[in-house]
Amino acid sequence: MKNLTQLVEIAQAGLQKNLQSGLPFHNFKEAYEYAVLPPGKLFRPLLCLAAAQDYNQGENFDKRVSDILKLSSALEIHHSYTLVHDDLPAMDDDDYRRGRLSTHKKYGQWQAILVGDGLLNHSYYLISDLETKFDKQIRKFFGWALGAKGLIQGQYLDLSHEMNHSFDNLIETHNLKTARLIQTSMICGMLMTTEEPQLASQNFYKLYRFGRSLGILFQLIDDLTELTEEINQHEKDVNPWLHQKEQTQARYLLELRKVSNFLKDHEGSSLKEITSQYLQKQKTTLENGWSHLVQYNLDQKTLLNPVMSVLDILSSR
Amino acid sequence: MKNLTQLVEIAQAGLQKNLQSGLPFHNFKEAYEYAVLPPGKLFRPLLCLAAAQDYNQGENFDKRVSDILKLSSALEIHHSYTLVHDDLPAMDDDDYRRGRLSTHKKYGQWQAILVGDGLLNHSYYLISDLETKFDKQIRKFFGWALGAKGLIQGQYLDLSHEMNHSFDNLIETHNLKTARLIQTSMICGMLMTTEEPQLASQNFYKLYRFGRSLGILFQLIDDLTELTEEINQHEKDVNPWLHQKEQTQARYLLELRKVSNFLKDHEGSSLKEITSQYLQKQKTTLENGWSHLVQYNLDQKTLLNPVMSVLDILSSR
Repeated sequence: MKNLTQLVEIAQAGLQKNLQSGLPFHNFKEAYEYAVLPPGKLFRPLLCLAAAQDYNQGENFDKRVSDILKLSSALEIHHSYTLVHDDLPAMDDDDYRRGRLSTHKKYGQWQAILVGDGLLNHSYYLISDLETKFDKQIRKFFGWALGAKGLIQGQYLDLSHEMNHSFDNLIETHNLKTARLIQTSMICGMLMTTEEPQLASQNFYKLYRFGRSLGILFQLIDDLTELTEEINQHEKDVNPWLHQKEQTQARYLLELRKVSNFLKDHEGSSLKEITSQYLQKQKTTLENGWSHLVQYNLDQKTLLNPVMSVLDILSSR
Repeated sequence: MKNLTQLVEIAQAGLQKNLQSGLPFHNFKEAYEYAVLPPGKLFRPLLCLAAAQDYNQGENFDKRVSDILKLSSALEIHHSYTLVHDDLPAMDDDDYRRGRLSTHKKYGQWQAILVGDGLLNHSYYLISDLETKFDKQIRKFFGWALGAKGLIQGQYLDLSHEMNHSFDNLIETHNLKTARLIQTSMICGMLMTTEEPQLASQNFYKLYRFGRSLGILFQLIDDLTELTEEINQHEKDVNPWLHQKEQTQARYLLELRKVSNFLKDHEGSSLKEITSQYLQKQKTTLENGWSHLVQYNLDQKTLLNPVMSVLDILSSR
């Protein structure tokens, strides 16, 4: 059993190796590397590895670790392509990403479009020959969840501002734009080490719901932590905690409860460790920024107590 | 055995159906359809179907026709994504495509970026579950040939103008940007209906070389037919028939001979029919535009006689 630190190490090494296999022997290679490395938090690869380990049957995790790392790398590379394209002037127009110039600012626009396209292609190349029982299901879910009906439709709802037309649209955007990749990470990770079709199908539905809740919860917490900093009028106008407070708070509590229920029943320790680390960090951010939050009439107890209960459950194991 | 007209019919119907399966139930669907439909010449799907038919073992073509059409549709959908992104202002900046507004002019830039990304994802989704003996090889070749080392590196060489630094660079650009997708179409089509590994591997190499020659030849003919119309100074500066005439003519004759040699030995009739139709059309264009071409001191006999010999061989079967 690998702990979280060990999983981070193999995820990083795997990403370095699996990225190289897709790049041209040409100086343009540098632009691809810039878009992916040095690795960020590797949240999606870690969810993949954690699920693969938590649902491991027999020796599958060890036997298939090289293919599992191909998959976890594909997830990070795919995520990176979405960021490179999202940052383009015609999209979100961001000059900075992770504290340095975004790819299009560093290398130019057409270069960034091609880097994104190249990374997208490579993510599929990496999952093209996985040796495992449910490889076909992995590829189909990956393509469905991240394609025109999934993640990309989430980007559409965001950029077209349809996201802001109703609370349902907001949740659907979070579901497509954020949760789909999280679901893919865990579901495909689980399918890499599972052998029995019935278990695969049970765990599929569990992780589908858990991933959906986790993704939506993360985005709602993101919107909340945004309020711990100075924000401008436009950001105030679209922040659901300000103009749809009751619905947002109710949905936040609901998704937090669902996440908690899944983790309570879940037998493995890796997914618990990752979620716990994430919630701990968000809790600290919110506590430190509460002086900012009070001006918006948000109740600290209502919002933080349920997070602490989840953390208690996770640490008392 | 289906003739070319019948292959066009099933390619069109397949594309309509297989495109729909990837689109969201939302009005943004329209932008995806605009980028792909109505179908163009379907050159790549037809090469795929032709190869699948020419190399057919047993009843495979009929048994697997639905999966072969998924593949042929994936090729056209992938080709469409490259055109949508190529037309973007930051890339080639083209306002028109096939006689109407390009996707970004019709729907906007971020919409065109997302349409391209969505089509790219969908092309891989369509080949994610092909039922055939060499499905893994199909996916690997597809991802390799069209990815960051392949087609996209060709786009890089073009946009960076490295293409114009030497004749070798020009040929490598044609090879990557044009030939890779043609090779993919024929090789993957052949692999859909082949059963014996040894035949698969022999035909792989034959089609790899034929596809390379066909792709390079097409681009050189493209450059030549460009000269049958009024062109501006910039186009004159980069046209290899004007500033690298001898090398270009020698290479044109070489690739034409390779194409001819492949077709002479080739047993099926579909690939012959497609190539013949294409060469016939180019020959007519060149003949009609010769009054323009004479000013560049190009010799009609040297350039057209070999094309006519190939056409003679093909029609005398």
